[in-house]
Formats: sequence, structure tokens, C-alpha cells
Amino acid sequence: MSGNSFGTLYRLTSFGESHGKAVGGILEGVLPGTEIDEVFIQSELDRRRPGQSKITTPRNEEDKVEILSGVFEGKATGTPIGFIIRNKDQRSNDYGNIMDVYRPSHADYTYQSKYGIRDYRGGGRSSARETIARVVAGAVAKLMLKQHGITIQAFTSTVGGISIDKDITKLDLGNTETNIVRCPDNETADKMIDFIDEVRKDKDSVGGIISCVIKGAPVGLGEPVFGKLHAELGQAMLSINAVKGFEYGLGFGSAKLKGSEHNDEFYMEGDRVRTRTNNSGGIQGGISNGEDIYFNVAFKPIATILKEQHTVNKQGEEIVSTTKGRHDPCVLPRAVPIVEAMAAMVIADQILLNKMYR
Amino acid sequence: MSGNSFGTLYRLTSFGESHGKAVGGILEGVLPGTEIDEVFIQSELDRRRPGQSKITTPRNEEDKVEILSGVFEGKATGTPIGFIIRNKDQRSNDYGNIMDVYRPSHADYTYQSKYGIRDYRGGGRSSARETIARVVAGAVAKLMLKQHGITIQAFTSTVGGISIDKDITKLDLGNTETNIVRCPDNETADKMIDFIDEVRKDKDSVGGIISCVIKGAPVGLGEPVFGKLHAELGQAMLSINAVKGFEYGLGFGSAKLKGSEHNDEFYMEGDRVRTRTNNSGGIQGGISNGEDIYFNVAFKPIATILKEQHTVNKQGEEIVSTTKGRHDPCVLPRAVPIVEAMAAMVIADQILLNKMYR
Amino acid sequence: MSGNSFGTLYRLTSFGESHGKAVGGILEGVLPGTEIDEVFIQSELDRRRPGQSKITTPRNEEDKVEILSGVFEGKATGTPIGFIIRNKDQRSNDYGNIMDVYRPSHADYTYQSKYGIRDYRGGGRSSARETIARVVAGAVAKLMLKQHGITIQAFTSTVGGISIDKDITKLDLGNTETNIVRCPDNETADKMIDFIDEVRKDKDSVGGIISCVIKGAPVGLGEPVFGKLHAELGQAMLSINAVKGFEYGLGFGSAKLKGSEHNDEFYMEGDRVRTRTNNSGGIQGGISNGEDIYFNVAFKPIATILKEQHTVNKQGEEIVSTTKGRHDPCVLPRAVPIVEAMAAMVIADQILLNKMYR
Amino acid sequence: MSGNSFGTLYRLTSFGESHGKAVGGILEGVLPGTEIDEVFIQSELDRRRPGQSKITTPRNEEDKVEILSGVFEGKATGTPIGFIIRNKDQRSNDYGNIMDVYRPSHADYTYQSKYGIRDYRGGGRSSARETIARVVAGAVAKLMLKQHGITIQAFTSTVGGISIDKDITKLDLGNTETNIVRCPDNETADKMIDFIDEVRKDKDSVGGIISCVIKGAPVGLGEPVFGKLHAELGQAMLSINAVKGFEYGLGFGSAKLKGSEHNDEFYMEGDRVRTRTNNSGGIQGGISNGEDIYFNVAFKPIATILKEQHTVNKQGEEIVSTTKGRHDPCVLPRAVPIVEAMAAMVIADQILLNKMYR
Repeated sequence: MSGNSFGTLYRLTSFGESHGKAVGGILEGVLPGTEIDEVFIQSELDRRRPGQSKITTPRNEEDKVEILSGVFEGKATGTPIGFIIRNKDQRSNDYGNIMDVYRPSHADYTYQSKYGIRDYRGGGRSSARETIARVVAGAVAKLMLKQHGITIQAFTSTVGGISIDKDITKLDLGNTETNIVRCPDNETADKMIDFIDEVRKDKDSVGGIISCVIKGAPVGLGEPVFGKLHAELGQAMLSINAVKGFEYGLGFGSAKLKGSEHNDEFYMEGDRVRTRTNNSGGIQGGISNGEDIYFNVAFKPIATILKEQHTVNKQGEEIVSTTKGRHDPCVLPRAVPIVEAMAAMVIADQILLNKMYR
Repeated sequence: MSGNSFGTLYRLTSFGESHGKAVGGILEGVLPGTEIDEVFIQSELDRRRPGQSKITTPRNEEDKVEILSGVFEGKATGTPIGFIIRNKDQRSNDYGNIMDVYRPSHADYTYQSKYGIRDYRGGGRSSARETIARVVAGAVAKLMLKQHGITIQAFTSTVGGISIDKDITKLDLGNTETNIVRCPDNETADKMIDFIDEVRKDKDSVGGIISCVIKGAPVGLGEPVFGKLHAELGQAMLSINAVKGFEYGLGFGSAKLKGSEHNDEFYMEGDRVRTRTNNSGGIQGGISNGEDIYFNVAFKPIATILKEQHTVNKQGEEIVSTTKGRHDPCVLPRAVPIVEAMAAMVIADQILLNKMYR
Repeated sequence: MSGNSFGTLYRLTSFGESHGKAVGGILEGVLPGTEIDEVFIQSELDRRRPGQSKITTPRNEEDKVEILSGVFEGKATGTPIGFIIRNKDQRSNDYGNIMDVYRPSHADYTYQSKYGIRDYRGGGRSSARETIARVVAGAVAKLMLKQHGITIQAFTSTVGGISIDKDITKLDLGNTETNIVRCPDNETADKMIDFIDEVRKDKDSVGGIISCVIKGAPVGLGEPVFGKLHAELGQAMLSINAVKGFEYGLGFGSAKLKGSEHNDEFYMEGDRVRTRTNNSGGIQGGISNGEDIYFNVAFKPIATILKEQHTVNKQGEEIVSTTKGRHDPCVLPRAVPIVEAMAAMVIADQILLNKMYR
Repeated sequence: MSGNSFGTLYRLTSFGESHGKAVGGILEGVLPGTEIDEVFIQSELDRRRPGQSKITTPRNEEDKVEILSGVFEGKATGTPIGFIIRNKDQRSNDYGNIMDVYRPSHADYTYQSKYGIRDYRGGGRSSARETIARVVAGAVAKLMLKQHGITIQAFTSTVGGISIDKDITKLDLGNTETNIVRCPDNETADKMIDFIDEVRKDKDSVGGIISCVIKGAPVGLGEPVFGKLHAELGQAMLSINAVKGFEYGLGFGSAKLKGSEHNDEFYMEGDRVRTRTNNSGGIQGGISNGEDIYFNVAFKPIATILKEQHTVNKQGEEIVSTTKGRHDPCVLPRAVPIVEAMAAMVIADQILLNKMYR
């Protein structure tokens, strides 16, 4: 797989560095006739935008998408949708002093070793700024999925040691956007916000978990063996910056159970085959079974912290480094729309692939 | 992605059902000149073979691989290696009674819905018997990687509630093959074996976790953005039957940490850039950094249990079903070589892909 | 593109050398429920079989296909169809003397240079024996296409200097299989057969042109820009051994024309949009327009001749070489089913791809 | 294959319609460190630019490329190069009257049928304007190939009935750019120019043939079976607008020959294996043999003519249509750099792919 493309029929190919002229992408597989609602796309970008609240980076980018092709009189034509988002608020000077520094747990060292050259400003291609293209592609996927009655909702379920301690299936996910940390339980959200603010003041960062639920997916998505639906979802999520783990259904929890506890018994609901429990997370044998698909994504604390750290530079000298610049103390709130975008792309791709059997 | 192929340059395409004539595959990207040690390949197949111990299924298949092409006078020629393994010990009659039954948490219902037709005998294509092809492809990959000084070692670290409670980095992984559960800590192994045996007698099954360490991988494997090394590894592992989760480095544990705790500081070891800790699991920005790569894979309890279960059939009737036939109470011991095989394929593929930069 | 796979959704991956144990392949994208008529598949193999007439090689292989997976009770299940054809009549000893010889216009030198190792017996992977897998895959594609009312008919239109001098659109293509050179005009066929026989006696070989007509293809097959239907057909044909050129519609002849002569005017035939002429060969803008698709494929004379030739060996010595063994004086008659097979695969793949728009 | 991507490791994904905001693409596989000479890229664009001479369309586009990513301080970084070219001189009003017309031998009807919607202005995605992206990608490929000592030179060898009647291998290809029709034989060039001018005045168009020679390609490029080098070249050329045929080496001419006439005998030139003749066109068994690679590409007369033509419209009515707007009477001169660009992309891709064997 090319590192810059995602998907088979519904496919995004992306480009762009943090401090280059623009980021953008080419989107294929958008069904002709799909209404391309630019206001909705922009609203999704705004959800991932830096500077949206006190717990996100003050870097303030407008992130305004310009669609260059593939749309005619407001509708997709079936030809590829090219789009760009100009980079504007670039304080490249902030990075002059880290030109030769390998920042701990960043991609500086590995990129330099792999390519022998790198655009060091703001992490270049390794910057989470590339996720803008994912959000655009995911927004368009959502527009397609809406026509199939499929909805995708992610939310912050853990920040550091703070987790929602209620039954997640009973939460009103509609609450998610009512607070700045994107946690559907307002009480937990408040704790998370306070904690992140504290971490920020301490010039540190913190990790967490995003959970996601896909409702309305039809039976039959996914391919046997190497193309299992959850393997595609896992690859999608693990490709997001700072992600360290993926589990679906009961996930790592299922390792502790017996088959008699874990198996989901089938029953009939009218004409429809259903399962009484959904430990499988809506996927059996790698193929969706019509129940809700749900999964968790673990994020490490972002590597950029404003504390002193020991490290080395390109010249092979051990040094002490202090990162300047702006940063997110916790990437989770802004990553919620990115998780949704990747999920939407996977489902859109599978919907198209599955049409060959019709 | 086609559901039956894995990899870009080092690529396996597989075929075969549990109770068809044979399983097998076509392997591309084996470097010309590689010595194809058939004894080694067979020894890897024997590690995954059913019937190898009292805690695995008594189904007794010889699983003898026949290589049909791509090898001349013992060496790979660079052309595709076709191979088959005949199915022999098929008791298809055992499955006559489940022809129309949707077994709980199996792929019966989803395959039937997706394709409108299925080979119900022994799970057909959804049977773990397809993993034979993976083990062959992984064994050849290991032969290639050995020349680069890369080794891959997986082991059972958790079965149900029983985990190794020692520092895993200090275990002698050479012990792994000394017991039938493939746990490098013999004390824990004994507990696991007793527990699995108990589960078996109870006609139940149990899940667990397999851990894996890759040593000797060079700096620079993996592609930015969508082709991150851990995303490829995750996709590989999640494609194995019964896998529910994947994490690398500190994984889900990193969600609880702060950046100042999680970041791996760099230092110089002679000419070589190293990290003092390895919370990153050997991968930074999606690219290997030369440290050990390690990850965990969560397996659910296998769905086949010999207890009565409520379910439905193809006719849409609710029924009570009891599975007969032979089964594994715990898939972990036999899955250890499969995890290694998939890891070996990913690394071999990345080694070839990375050559374009040389 | 991997050199051993062809197609995106309808996809063949093949393996096998001329003198290895077997040739075979894995076929994906066969629609579940398709009746797999093994008698028909075998009849297609028999059309390409050596030893079928006095103008083909006396090498006598049974070429019996064994299907190993993907078919249950006579129908495709949607899982990959693995198949092998054992090599039987191998006189590998015939090739001992050419072990180190680079035969003129064969692949000996280029394979040796590329891989540093090769199976020299009978050309190894470069032998036209690999086309067996194509014929199997094409036969299954034809079974699928029959359900869509699509037929594919190739025939020999030129051998050396002898061409059909009648209006090809008025020939009864049903005659094609009535003579051993597979030319639908019996008068021309007789001349071709006499000529080939003469060439054979002279220990020489001769080239020619195969023409092909696809009837019943729906409007809309093919993708814009790089995936044009004729580009896919061209790639397919050019991948067949000994092919040197491809043209569709008026082909090279169109280079001489003016737009006013070449353009196909549209008219209405009832509800259907038709063209009065079909200089476009049924494809406009890379997409099928519902008219007959037709194209020509140029074959060079096969490189194996039984005359003395000057050449060099692996040791870099100039030598005089005389090939022994059996050979075809003219590859055309046996290549007719191969051209059809590749065309059938392309159309089947495009039919599946085009379903995403439905 | 996605219709909008070309290549495996060296890969262009393109977007854009004739009258949209911009055309552009994303280029992957550019070796890090390659100097990106924007002046050279622009000069290649200028060779394909409309309005460059009296025999090309007077549509006057600046076609100024803007590189948005993947280049740092003048050098490629190994990350994808995103680029756009804004559309400027759009007289969309010229096309209002053909909104519903299916122009003969254009893609209007097939696009409308495939997608159910289309951007009719100037042919939309089917316009040759998309080839701008190819020229940019080809120019960068040439910069990479120059480092390997590989050069690619195409030229107009036939226009209508006028062909170069000299031995092409003895022409000075350096002359190609000295005349506006890009024919290296000035005498023939003059005839071609006069003829095209006449055709233009007659509101008609004319076809022709472009020939191309690749010098300096190493032995070993191309993959066996489906990935033969000439099959990749053929697919590349056939994907260019208006191309109807491809042949390499002696091409269709080889169909008339005997093996004893066509075979290229090997000899030693110092340490190097050479062939005395080069009827193979530098490719044997699908793999380059170190001799010059050469091929011909047939172009039909462009469909846009300014004469009255009978056709139908979207409403299914038979009408008489006269195209207005600007057009090229002969596409050949401007297609020369496009042929070179596609060839350069194929060779660059194969160079990268072949590195896996090193």
C-alpha cells in the first residue's frame, strides 16, 4: 500500500506538510449525484480546528477548504474531487532552533534516517495537520452514508485516569458536542476539562481513549481472511497520529472470558436475525452482522511538551532541548472528528465494494 | 484491498476452505537466491498443527506442504511460489446437522447473508484452516529476514485471568517452545495448561493474549500517514481469526500517562542513536527506530463450544443447538506461529518497499 | 502492479513454470452462485492444448484442471477458486544442453540478468505454458458474462503475408472453429494452413494477427483517464507471450484519416443511442458505448526455431546454437482462446467495477 | 486499477476538469534528494501548451504549475508532491449550446450514460486538459531518470498520409524541437505543417503517429507475465486521449516475418551482451535487454471539427450540430511531450520496483 492513499474504491490520496503551502487530497469513489454540502464539510473541519477552545492549541488556522474539481452545480460528478487547504498561520521561525534536534518520541529521527532529508518545520508530513484531508474525505463519506441511513458517532471516553463510569450503551451520544472535551457524560467531561487544563499549565500532555459507534450499517460489509471489516477499521485508526491501540467489541476484555460468556446468541426480531448480546461489536467472521459496530482507540500523550528533555541532534551530540511553539495538551477532543472520518471512509469503501455482489 | 491477498511486494494470495480439497497460496516477492528450507517450513506448520497436544483439537491433519513452482534446485527464482496443502482428515459428516444452523458468534450468518451461498462444512473459508497458508508464507519470510539478522518471537502472555506477572523484557523467550501453551515462564505455563484443560472438560473455551517481539529490524521501515508500520502490523494481526484487539508499545496503557512519563529520550550509544526507554515499541511516526518492536494481540474465546446454545437457522426459526465435532478449547498455543508469520510477512514487505530509497 | 496478478475485482493470480510440478492460479471475484461448468472449462483448455493438430507442437499435455476451492455443489461460493494443472509430458532432458545458452529473442538473458538465477527448462516462467491459468480464468469469466448476454470471439485474421481479404464484419465467426488455424474464412484458412506447414518443414516460425469481437457489452464499462477500457484491453493483450502490438477500432489506420471521415455519427434506434459507423471500435472516451468492441493483436513469429543461430552463453562466449525440442511453427491458432480469455477477464472485471455506480 | 492513478511506486494520481477551477495531481515515489527544477517542469508544460503555434488551438492558457508540498529547499523530501495548475482562459459560454448534445466520437454520451451527470463544459474530465498533470509527473520522472543516464525522446513520424521515409534510427532526434510539428526530419516537417494548416482551414482534423525512443535503460526492467514492460508502456500510451494503437519493436510488421528473419542474435561487445539487430525493441520476455526501447503510438484525428455533423441529444432527438470553440486540427505536436511523460513515468516506476532485487 502506498502510504498516502487510503481505501480501494472510496479512496483518499493526500499530500501536504505542516508548514508547506497547503495540505489537500484527491477523493475518488464519491457516487455521482451525491450533494456536496460545503457548509457541512466546513463544520467538520471546524470540529478538528486548532484554537477552538482553551484546551486546544492556540495555533489559529482557518482551515478553509477549496474544492477544485469533481463537483458540478453542487453535485458530485463521479470524477475525482481535488481539494486544498492553504496553510496560513505558519510561524516557521519557531522551528528554526529545532532544525537539527531529534525531539523525543517525535518522527524527526526516523524521517531523517529513512529519507536522508526532511522538512523539519512543525513536523512536516508527520504533523497531525495532514489529518485535515482525512476530515474532508470523511465528511463527504458521511454525506454518502446518510443516504444509507448510517451514522457514525465518536466521543472521548477516557482522559488519563478519568473514564466514563456509566454504561456507555445508555449514554445520550447527542450530548457529545455540548462540551469542549467531546465526552457525552457532562459530569465526566468537567473532570476531564479540569485535568487537561492542569496538565496544560504544567507544560505537559496526556493521553486517552476515543470510543466510536456506527449505527445502521447493513449486514455483509467486509471481506473474509485479510480484508476483515475490523482489520480495515483497525488499520484506519492505527494510521491516525498518536494512536497506540485498537479494539472492537469487548476487545482486550474478551481475552479473559469463556466462550459461553462471550458468544452472542441469535434470535429473531420479526424477519430480522439479531443477537441478544453484542460482544462481537457488530462484526462476525470479519463481516458486519447488522448490529451496532463499536470500537475503542487508544491515544498516547502527544510528544510535544514544553518541559526540558534530554535528547540528541543530527550531529550525534547529546543535548538538552526545550520545545517552544504552541501545542495541544490533549489531542483527544480534536481527534474525535478524525476517528469518525476514518470510520466513515472505511464504511463507504465497503459499501461500494459490496455492490459487486448485487 | 482484495480480501485474499496480503502485502504489496512480499505478497501472499491464499485460497481454500476447511473441507475442500486443499488450502494453499501464491507467494510473491521472495528474493531470488533465497534458500527455501522445506524442513523449516514444515516445522513451522507443525507448530500450528492440530492434534499436537492434549490442549489442542484432536483433529489430526498432517498438513504437508507441496511447493509447486518458484523454486529451482532448492533456491527461490524470483517467480511466484505456488503451494498447496491437501485436506485429509475431513469428517464432513460431523457438519451435516449444522448445514442450516447459524452457530452463535461464528461466520455462518454473515457469510450466508453476504454471498447467498456458503460451504457450511467446518466453517468453509472462515475456518482457521486458512491460516496454514499464512504460516507457509511467514516461514519463507523468516528465511529471508534471517539474512538481515531479524528475528520474530511470539508467546502466550495471558490465558483467561492468568498472566505472566514478571517483567516481560527479562524473560528468556527461548523457553517458549518448552511447554505446550507456548508461555516462556514455565510456572505461569503450568497454571495456564491446567486452566485450559479444565475449560476443555467443561466443554467451554477461553481467550487470551499473545505478545510478540521483533528484534533486529533496521531503522526506516514503514511509510508516513496511512502506511505506518504499526498500522500494517495491526491490520495483519486483526486479520487473524478470533482477534479482537491490537496494541503496540505501551498500547492502551499509554492512554493513562503524561507526555513527560511516556516520551522516550534519545541518547548516543557509540555512533548509534538509541532511546533510554522504549515506550514507543520501536516505532515513531509510523517508522521503525531500530529498537525492539513489540505488540500484544487479544484473542476472544473460540466460538465453538460443546454446550447447548440458543440460536436461529437459515429458515428463520429459533432453535437450540449443540455443536459436535472436535475443537480447540484455547486457540492461543497454535496461534503463536500465526502471529509470528503475519509479523514476518509485514517486515519482509517493508524491507522490500524500503529498498526503493537505496 | 504485481507481475503475477491481473484485474482488480475479477482477478487472477497465477504461478508456475513450464517444467515445474504444476501451473495454476487463484481466481477472485467470481460471483457467488455462478455455475462452474468444468466441462466447458476443459473444452477451453483443449482449444489451447498443444498437440491438437499437425500445425501445433507435438508436445502432448493433457492439461487437466483440478479445482481445489471456491466451488460447492457445482456453484461458486464467492471465495477464491484455487486451481492447478499438473505438468506431465516434461522432457527436461531436452533442455540440458541449453542450460547456459541465451537463445536469441527468448527471455533467457533478461531473466538471468534480472534475477541472477533461473529455471532454464523450457523457458521456465517465460514459457507460454503460464497461459493455461489465463484460459481457466477466462473460461470462468465467460460463464459469468454469458449471464449478461456478452460473447467474445477471436479468430486468426493474418498469418505471415496471408490475410482475410473480405469485409470482416460480414464473416460468419461461427466458422472459426471449423478449421485448425481458427480462421472464419475457410478459403483463407486453407492457404494459412499450407503456409504454416511449409514453415514448419523449413524449421522456421511465422507471425500473424488475431482479431477479436466482443458483442453485447453494456454502455459504461471503463474508467476515465488511466483506466480507459481500451487501455485495459491493450495491457491484457500485450501481456500475452509474443504480442508486439495492439489496436482497437480503426487503430493505426485512423492515423491516416480526417475527423470528418473518422467520426461516428449518432442516431436513434428506437430508444437506443447508436452510431452509424463504428470506427471507434465500441469505445469512446475510454468507455464502452454499446456497439461491438473490436481489436487486433499482432504476434511476432515465435522465437524457437530449429535452425542454427549465432548467440552467446552465460559465460559470455559467442557460440552457434541449435534448439532441439518441440515447438509451434505458428502460435496463432492456440493463441485464439488466450486472446478471448484475456478479453473475458477484462470485461468481467469492468462489469464488477461498474456496479459501484448502481 | 483506479482510473485516476498511474504507477505502483512512482505514482501519479490526478484530478481536474477542463473548465473547473484547476487541474492537478499528487506525485509519489520521487526519490528524496532529487532536485526539483521548476524551470524544467515549466518548459515541459510549455511544450504541451495550447496556443504555441499556428497549428495548435488558439486557446491560450498559461499553465503555470504551483507545487504545494513534498519539496523543501529545492529538493524532493520523499513525501508526496501535490501540485495544481489553475484554469484561466475558460470560455464556458462557448459550451452552453452543447450542454445536451452528444458530439460525435466524443465522450459526452458515454460519460452521461455511466455517471448520469456530467460537467459538459469543454469535455470536463475527458478533456485532454487532464494531460497537464501527466506532463508535470513526467518532467519530474525525467529529472530522476537523468541521474541514471536515461533519456526519452518522442517525435511526430506520421501525419495523415505523410510519413518520414528515411531510416528512423539514423535521424538526428535533436532536430525534433526545431519545428512546430516536432518531426526530426525538417523536409517532412514542412510537408506536415502545410497539410495540417490546410486541414485547419477546412475546419477538419487529422491523425498521425508518434514514435518514441528510450535510451540508456538498464537490463532487467519489467516483470514477467502480466507486468511485462511493453504491456505497461502500452497501457500508458493507450490511456492518452485519442490513442488507437500501440506497437513496439517491429510491432505489426513482425506479424509478416519468419522467426529466422525476426530473431535478434546475441553477440559480445566487450563484457556486454548485445543484439546485432533490435527487432525486439529492447524488450525480451517482457524485460528490458539494454538495447534502445522504441515504440509507435497511433492517434486518431481529434473528434472536434468545426463542420456540421448529424448526431443526437440527451433528450433522444436527432439533430444537426456545429461545434464552435477553439480546437487543434492535429493533436500530434502537443502530444509529443505527453508520450514522453508517460514513458518517463513507466520507466521511473520500473526502476524503483526493480530495486527490490538489489
